[in-house]
Amino acid sequence: MKIAFYDDGSGPRTGIVTAERLTPTGLAGGMAELIAAWDDVQAELRRREAAGDGAPLASVRLLPPVPRPGKVFAIGLNYADHIAESKMETPQHQVWFTKAVTSVNGPFDPVQIPRISQTVDYEAELVAVIGKGGKHIGRDDAAARIFGYCVGNDVTERMWQHRTAQWSLGKSFDTHAPIGPWITTSDEIDPHNLALKCLVNGEERQSSNTRHLVFDVFDQVAHLSQAMTLEPGDLVFTGTPGGIGAAMTPRRFLKPGDVVRCEIEGLGHIENRFEPEA
Amino acid sequence: MKIAFYDDGSGPRTGIVTAERLTPTGLAGGMAELIAAWDDVQAELRRREAAGDGAPLASVRLLPPVPRPGKVFAIGLNYADHIAESKMETPQHQVWFTKAVTSVNGPFDPVQIPRISQTVDYEAELVAVIGKGGKHIGRDDAAARIFGYCVGNDVTERMWQHRTAQWSLGKSFDTHAPIGPWITTSDEIDPHNLALKCLVNGEERQSSNTRHLVFDVFDQVAHLSQAMTLEPGDLVFTGTPGGIGAAMTPRRFLKPGDVVRCEIEGLGHIENRFEPEA
Repeated sequence: MKIAFYDDGSGPRTGIVTAERLTPTGLAGGMAELIAAWDDVQAELRRREAAGDGAPLASVRLLPPVPRPGKVFAIGLNYADHIAESKMETPQHQVWFTKAVTSVNGPFDPVQIPRISQTVDYEAELVAVIGKGGKHIGRDDAAARIFGYCVGNDVTERMWQHRTAQWSLGKSFDTHAPIGPWITTSDEIDPHNLALKCLVNGEERQSSNTRHLVFDVFDQVAHLSQAMTLEPGDLVFTGTPGGIGAAMTPRRFLKPGDVVRCEIEGLGHIENRFEPEA
Repeated sequence: MKIAFYDDGSGPRTGIVTAERLTPTGLAGGMAELIAAWDDVQAELRRREAAGDGAPLASVRLLPPVPRPGKVFAIGLNYADHIAESKMETPQHQVWFTKAVTSVNGPFDPVQIPRISQTVDYEAELVAVIGKGGKHIGRDDAAARIFGYCVGNDVTERMWQHRTAQWSLGKSFDTHAPIGPWITTSDEIDPHNLALKCLVNGEERQSSNTRHLVFDVFDQVAHLSQAMTLEPGDLVFTGTPGGIGAAMTPRRFLKPGDVVRCEIEGLGHIENRFEPEA
């Protein structure tokens, strides 16, 4: 099932995406509540999905599927070609940083080029949305604890990322975590065999497949949950492949008016125009 | 004013601390809601504070003043003696990492020694609680955007902190951000002249004063807000002085049964027993 968070003019709500239509779930609350209630509501949502009698998808505004997650963790250096272009060694342990929850942004909303920045870059990524979550999740149980997947752009301010050794602040600018266009539930997806692309103004910059992840999604969830309780709606950015602007010669950062499209097989795409911060 | 979040047996609520009493604010919601409504509710709360007719403080359970902040940012290497013991250079730029919101813990609740850990350490810190917040806050305006201050222990799993270059995961274990005992509002505090101590089983391990901060609290808020919108209830851990267990010879990490007390002049203290994770 594909579940969106959207606004048709009468307030934000969750809905089921079918072909070119969006059918309201009829549930109060946002995506985190829907995820937490999934076992109880799933059958009814499948009935509504089969009816598929909603409004045309083109008539609504798609919002970030989880506008205010509890946690947003993101792994670095997790595709061989990106490790090489970053002139780093393949890490022995998973390298984690965070994106502030205030950076979460809609799938088609503008992304800010911050006032203080001339080095904004894209990173297309598969994003896992935690379902039941929990603590000490075994690798074999990880798939069952993930609610679904969506597309994300781990937008990065490179100067702030690298002027100290800690990356999280440079990853946390407002609007720098666009996600969407909706969540595709886990039962429809093999997260380790998905083509993934990033295009800037139509020019292909990144093209890979999630089978090239160094640490796969289930390893990531298992590892994080040794430290902390994962909760419904928490987001895990699973790494970006080679092709970032900072690694090109000469380096090519995003300029006002640039349009960045990130797409993943089976999950759809997000597309954001980069605009100067007001 | 000193404002606590507590449970007297009839559910969590906010209250005003006066001498040895806790007077309910009468407001619905938690601390973030109170902070957001502060301009409107302040006069009424001052009246209640003057009455001071609440329950004995000793009869209630104090909860973390902000149990679920939006963001928890923490600065590293921000006291000269801690930089020296860490064998690092004084940073030119502020070094920021994060603590997961699921690590927030009560002022007198147990802290877990994680299953996978033998290297848990303490870090006593002044914690700023964001009030109005905002974006691009000037240094001169920062004081007005901070609601108040409390005591925090930036509990750290040293092995996970250092086995990659990114610190945030090792700082994010469940229960590893005890804060409290309450928030003391900004009008009562000069945050840059407060004695601060950490004691383990009564033995003094850290003793400094916030006048020794490398980057002061207002600089920190100004800097963070260049990147992101600060919101009511966001927490800023402002750095720890020298004396951590990892820098002692031999290194001394926390063991089951150890009791760690962090205290700051004018703000009270928190005290947590360290227990093995179940």
